This record gives sequence, C-alpha cells and structure tokens, in this order.
Amino acid sequence: MAAENGPDAVSIGEVARLAGVHESSIYRRCGTQEHVILDALLSFSSQHLPIPDSGSVRKDLIEFARSIATYQAGPQGIALARAMAVADDDSVLASSRIEFWQSRFELARVMIDRAVARGEVPETVDAAMALEALIAPAHFRALLTHQPIDEPFLERVVDQLLQGIGRYEPRSRA
Amino acid sequence: MAAENGPDAVSIGEVARLAGVHESSIYRRCGTQEHVILDALLSFSSQHLPIPDSGSVRKDLIEFARSIATYQAGPQGIALARAMAVADDDSVLASSRIEFWQSRFELARVMIDRAVARGEVPETVDAAMALEALIAPAHFRALLTHQPIDEPFLERVVDQLLQGIGRYEPRSRA
Repeated sequence: MAAENGPDAVSIGEVARLAGVHESSIYRRCGTQEHVILDALLSFSSQHLPIPDSGSVRKDLIEFARSIATYQAGPQGIALARAMAVADDDSVLASSRIEFWQSRFELARVMIDRAVARGEVPETVDAAMALEALIAPAHFRALLTHQPIDEPFLERVVDQLLQGIGRYEPRSRA
Repeated sequence: MAAENGPDAVSIGEVARLAGVHESSIYRRCGTQEHVILDALLSFSSQHLPIPDSGSVRKDLIEFARSIATYQAGPQGIALARAMAVADDDSVLASSRIEFWQSRFELARVMIDRAVARGEVPETVDAAMALEALIAPAHFRALLTHQPIDEPFLERVVDQLLQGIGRYEPRSRA
C-alpha cells in the first residue's frame, strides 16, 4: 500500500494502480494522502474520457455517457467518486472538486457547441446544465441505486434529455 | 455515540439524532451498525418527503426537487447518501439500496401519473427515468461538485427535463 513507504516514495501511476486493486480502502485514506490519490485518479480520468465527434449530437452524447459510465464503474472511478462523496468540505479533495468538474465540463461542452452549430440544439442551450443532466443519472445509479448502467439506459437518458418529457411545442415557439 | 452502549441500548430516533450531529462518522460505522443507522435514516427520510399535488407538473416537480434537495443538504441526507455511496456490495446497506430507491420512486411517480391524466405529459413517459433525471442532478451537486442547489438550478433542471434541449418536434409526431 502507498502508506507503507510514505508519499514521497509513491509515484502517481503506482497509486492509480493500487487504487484499482484496493479500491475499498481509498476513501479511508483521504485524510492523510488525499492529494496524492486525487492526482492519480484525476490523471487517469482525463486520459480516459475522449470527446466524441460523430456528427450527431445523439450519438456523441450516448458515446460520451458510455465512456463515463465505463470509467466510473471501474475501480478507479468508484474510488474517485467515493473519495469525493465523503471528503470533508475543508479537505484538499473538496477544494479540487469544483475545479475538476468544471474542467471536465469545459472539455465536454464542445459536443454541445458542435450540436448548436449543426442546428440540432438551439443556441440558448445551457451546456453545463445539459452535461450535468447527461452524466448525473449514471452517477446516481453507480453511487446510490446500483441499478444497471447499460446501453438501453444510456440511450433513454440521452433521448429524454434531447426530447424532454413534456407535451411542449418546439423550443423555437416556446 | 451509539457505539458506546451497543446496538440494543440505542433507539432509532436517537441514532437519527446522533447522525445529524456526528454526520462525518456515520459512514465509518457502516460495518458494525449499518442496519440500525439505515433504519433511522430511512425512517426520517420517508417522513420528510411529501408528494406535492399543485395541479401543475412543473410546480410539482420543482417543489419535490426542492424538498429532496433540502433534505439531502441536511446532516441526515448527507449521512445517508455517504453511507449508501461507500457501502460494500455485500453489506446490509447495499441490499437495502435498490429497495429504498424503488419505494421512493413508487411514491413519487403519482406526480407523473397525474401529469399524464392532465395531458401535460404523454402516457408513453417512463416515470422512473423522469424521476431519476429530476433528482440525480441535485444528488450529483450535493455529493460530487458541491455547486449550489438553489431555486434557479431546480427550475432549470425541471424545465430542461420537461422541454428537452433538442430541436425536436412535439413527441406526438416523433
């Protein structure tokens, strides 16, 4: 374990690897080595979240949701989500949280921007809100209900996000 | 603390009260007393989640999301969410998770059923998916990003859920 040799002796990659093997102990270590663990997990996270560009907003959003779901269902994703969920508000982890998500959303919003440019989504869209609505349900299932995060679920999340559930006229007339 | 006297000496109400005061220690105790803590938190939760019936699906969903957000931002809500997030899959807490959320959704879906009866939402709606999309973003903020869960946010979640972000024709022609 990382704690055996002290923070200075541990490479970030090694912690990330250890995080996968010993996921259940990660969140218990937040108090002492959270910055090392956070760096490792964030580094892994940014490498594994490519932004799709298929030409279709529906396809892009489904593929992005799928890659997030695959990542977060893995040991690193679970460890990161748990560490973030239980971190105290005055911890290093907590202070990195908002920055982490904002940078994630900044990277991902190009999917929405391209959809606006193609005319699939009106330019009045709130891209950050749309991305939250895209990935929050899968996090909700992964962290709380543990219901399956499968392809039909991801497609329904995206279709519901695009179409809405209400009997509304098209947005141009709203 | 509950652990000082053993599980038998602790009333559920007392644990719930203690959960509020000592929220940060709740999830660390899941291994030994999780069933007592879970019962206390679920009991509190069911009492504090009334289902609104205003005659407007938009108003109902905003009010419901607000009451969930208020609850989950409090010490019991945070303790429950954290305990659920970090519970091992073979724990008592984990086995209660799906049942808990299913019963919550069963209670809440009457809002959607009433909206269908009023013609505000088509009867093809997936009520469980709609409710997940309603409450997942607030959980996401409460647990992960810690961004504000205020009235404008709740209204945008509901409007986005009802209207969708895409330039779609009304669902009847989809």
